[in-house]
Amino acid sequence: MMAGQDLRYDAGGLSMVGSLHRPSQEGIAPGVLVFPEAFGFSSHATGKAARIANELGYVALACDLWGDRRELPGLADVTPAVEALASDAAALRCRVTSALVALRAQPGVDTTRIAAVGYCFGGTMAFELAACADIRAAVGIHSRLQFPSLDGGASGIKGRIMALLGADDPGNPPEVQESFARPLTEAGVDWEMTLYGGVVHSFSNPDAAEKGQPDMLRYDARADRRSWTQMASLFEEALA
Amino acid sequence: MMAGQDLRYDAGGLSMVGSLHRPSQEGIAPGVLVFPEAFGFSSHATGKAARIANELGYVALACDLWGDRRELPGLADVTPAVEALASDAAALRCRVTSALVALRAQPGVDTTRIAAVGYCFGGTMAFELAACADIRAAVGIHSRLQFPSLDGGASGIKGRIMALLGADDPGNPPEVQESFARPLTEAGVDWEMTLYGGVVHSFSNPDAAEKGQPDMLRYDARADRRSWTQMASLFEEALA
Repeated sequence: MMAGQDLRYDAGGLSMVGSLHRPSQEGIAPGVLVFPEAFGFSSHATGKAARIANELGYVALACDLWGDRRELPGLADVTPAVEALASDAAALRCRVTSALVALRAQPGVDTTRIAAVGYCFGGTMAFELAACADIRAAVGIHSRLQFPSLDGGASGIKGRIMALLGADDPGNPPEVQESFARPLTEAGVDWEMTLYGGVVHSFSNPDAAEKGQPDMLRYDARADRRSWTQMASLFEEALA
Repeated sequence: MMAGQDLRYDAGGLSMVGSLHRPSQEGIAPGVLVFPEAFGFSSHATGKAARIANELGYVALACDLWGDRRELPGLADVTPAVEALASDAAALRCRVTSALVALRAQPGVDTTRIAAVGYCFGGTMAFELAACADIRAAVGIHSRLQFPSLDGGASGIKGRIMALLGADDPGNPPEVQESFARPLTEAGVDWEMTLYGGVVHSFSNPDAAEKGQPDMLRYDARADRRSWTQMASLFEEALA
């Protein structure tokens, strides 16, 4: 597995340091943005980006979230930071489109074939990018189900939307699922949603237990594996 | 593609004529039961069974439903027939276990590695089989979400359960989804459910339009393809 290469980019004054991962195959390849969990840039996100490059053959950028690879230590720090960013549409759009611009500027990236995947609040960022930019697909894994800056309908969304969720994730009760899905259906967006039974938040992160909140944040090997397969299958369809 | 071979079996006095499809590879292989849509034995079910044999390498039995390959012409005939069968637990269990016994008796079938897939009411049959027999997985595609003869909890279910549904299927509103999922979660069953946006019932059947009820029964090539991939992926995991 090739190590990632630091990629610096600006996001509205924040100095972001992402990690770029290239497939072993030479030539032009589609690009995939990987938005980390709300804690920030992490080995979880770089690990997924490395696998996307090595196993799927795309150029993958693990994105910074809070600048200078700052990682917030716990939920007490994360919640206010996320709420502030989610409620500032301009800042959020800047955060996600800066990463897109940075990835598209790299040699070897097919600028017309871009997808995004995100985890936790990173899923919201992937969805948000699909709402404001021309990407082929956005996948949210144990994602928050939101398009924070979507005014009115979802008719601007051209890419495929996929949400892969723990059925027992306390952040995504049925009424939230419904209010996420309704505008997508009304706008004719290609979307799908999968619920994994008995699974909560952060199921793709083997280090989830370190946060000490197992009823909310818990790794699940089966859901991790199945969500990887579903994401890969959608990317294969969307980036062909 | 090899043609199916007629397979006759008895189901509580009904003379069933299924269609058995074998992979080209010689030797012992896992077995898959394919339960048809509520209309009955059909080219849709045999086509799926043929693909399961040819592309996935399992011995697949497309099951008869109403005996003598009788196919009911329309929903007006189907509804009372299905209601009668779904409310007669003994008859339903006999219908599904007869098919299991018939498949297990075939040479070349690994009797310990069996899965089932069903479409429409056939999905209910696959789920029902998982509730009363030791199979590895049951997949319901545009399925009704029921375990008709499940008394109390779902703790007897050892196999994996997967429901792949049109989000706009009028038969599966959110409250039905929840009442399907709750006992599975409580019993610790490995289950998952996917909703395809903008999709209704019968999405895997290219002939769905012939029924003339497009708001309810409509083919969807994308959901057909994605549900096939998800089913194949689960079978690969469960039948390994």
